[in-house]
Amino acid sequence: MEIFYHKKKIVESTNSWAISEVNNIDENEIHVFSADFQIYGRGQGNHTWSSEDGQNILMSFLVKNLNVKIQNQFLLSRIIALAAYNYISEELLNDKVEIKWPNDILVNNKKIAGILIENLVMGDVIKATVSGIGININQGKFASDLNLATSMIINDNKQRNIEIEIKKMAENYKECLELYFKNGDDYIYKAYNDKLWGLNATKKFMLDGNIVECTILGTEKDGQISLLMPDKNKKSFFHHEIATCY
Amino acid sequence: MEIFYHKKKIVESTNSWAISEVNNIDENEIHVFSADFQIYGRGQGNHTWSSEDGQNILMSFLVKNLNVKIQNQFLLSRIIALAAYNYISEELLNDKVEIKWPNDILVNNKKIAGILIENLVMGDVIKATVSGIGININQGKFASDLNLATSMIINDNKQRNIEIEIKKMAENYKECLELYFKNGDDYIYKAYNDKLWGLNATKKFMLDGNIVECTILGTEKDGQISLLMPDKNKKSFFHHEIATCY
Repeated sequence: MEIFYHKKKIVESTNSWAISEVNNIDENEIHVFSADFQIYGRGQGNHTWSSEDGQNILMSFLVKNLNVKIQNQFLLSRIIALAAYNYISEELLNDKVEIKWPNDILVNNKKIAGILIENLVMGDVIKATVSGIGININQGKFASDLNLATSMIINDNKQRNIEIEIKKMAENYKECLELYFKNGDDYIYKAYNDKLWGLNATKKFMLDGNIVECTILGTEKDGQISLLMPDKNKKSFFHHEIATCY
Repeated sequence: MEIFYHKKKIVESTNSWAISEVNNIDENEIHVFSADFQIYGRGQGNHTWSSEDGQNILMSFLVKNLNVKIQNQFLLSRIIALAAYNYISEELLNDKVEIKWPNDILVNNKKIAGILIENLVMGDVIKATVSGIGININQGKFASDLNLATSMIINDNKQRNIEIEIKKMAENYKECLELYFKNGDDYIYKAYNDKLWGLNATKKFMLDGNIVECTILGTEKDGQISLLMPDKNKKSFFHHEIATCY
């Protein structure tokens, strides 16, 4: 797969930009849309991605006709999460990198990256997928409500060239896509689960307004998290049904 | 809801054009994208929509944030099908107009309109929906493999102004959306089922390579067609699982 790079200084969101280009790309191409700054970072629900101008990675991947069904859309979250995990792990060799369900990347228990997927669907087939990711690179301080955030520079004191880091991340994304084509979704499913934050550990969750302690057993094929509840029964939840506390 | 009209002579497909404009519209707006001719009419699967230059309606509606979940996406097929049904019924008062599952419109058992929906999905929510429709208006003859096709002019000998017809269709679409907002999806579900081609009649279907005669009982909420099978058991099918013969 060939990678094509597109860059702007300011965009509304890199995901929106990518979506507007969906008619201009071919199959088997990875298109990367990046910006120094986005006015309106779309997070899942009310969460927006706060980023200092030019200090961090803000990028979206656009790929067409992966032949994934909408029922299997969590596969696309797994692929980008794995790519980010691999990229960050290679940079921060001495730190603990984990994937926090459904699609954050943590370094030493602090959030370094967030992911947002948007799909173009016809019937039950995903015709195009946009995988947006923000990764904190050179930003040394975060607003107080983000005190659980971290960045590369906070962890290793190294200033990085954002353009170069975008290319490294894109190569990792390409590699993960190719691993999926070669080995199928079972392979991706297992690789994601192996890197899961809190796997086999007891963590606090917010469920129906209460905090409950559950053991994380892994994720299901459909993207649900599988938990051992306080009553020792196994139960699975979709993203909007439960929140993790950390 | 206000309707905004956009027109070009030639497009790749009106759906593609609509999708590329998704960042440029606001909520509570209906945007209409029409063309005289499309190079690449996307039908469901391998079916393409064949249309003589400037003779027929080729249009796509773009609407944002209808707050419909992907599980309930067939609602959007129902709304555009109902709108087309209403528009065509008002024009052809003496003819039998029906909705053929999943989303064709028939006049006297011949196809006059085809629909293609594409959705932009984030998580399980449809953020934007594109409803494309082709309606045969002034075209008097169809290629031999389309001998089950018809048009307005074939039925009533009346030449129509395409611009005016596009506006009538758009008003009907707006009306159906507003009926949904006012009365909910149960209302739309029943209205669609009432107009269903072959309701309570026995029709031939192609199922796993065999032709089977089944009685059409209606459609399910999720868009499946519900059939009384030759063995008198009730069974439901998605669009890709069964084909209607007519």
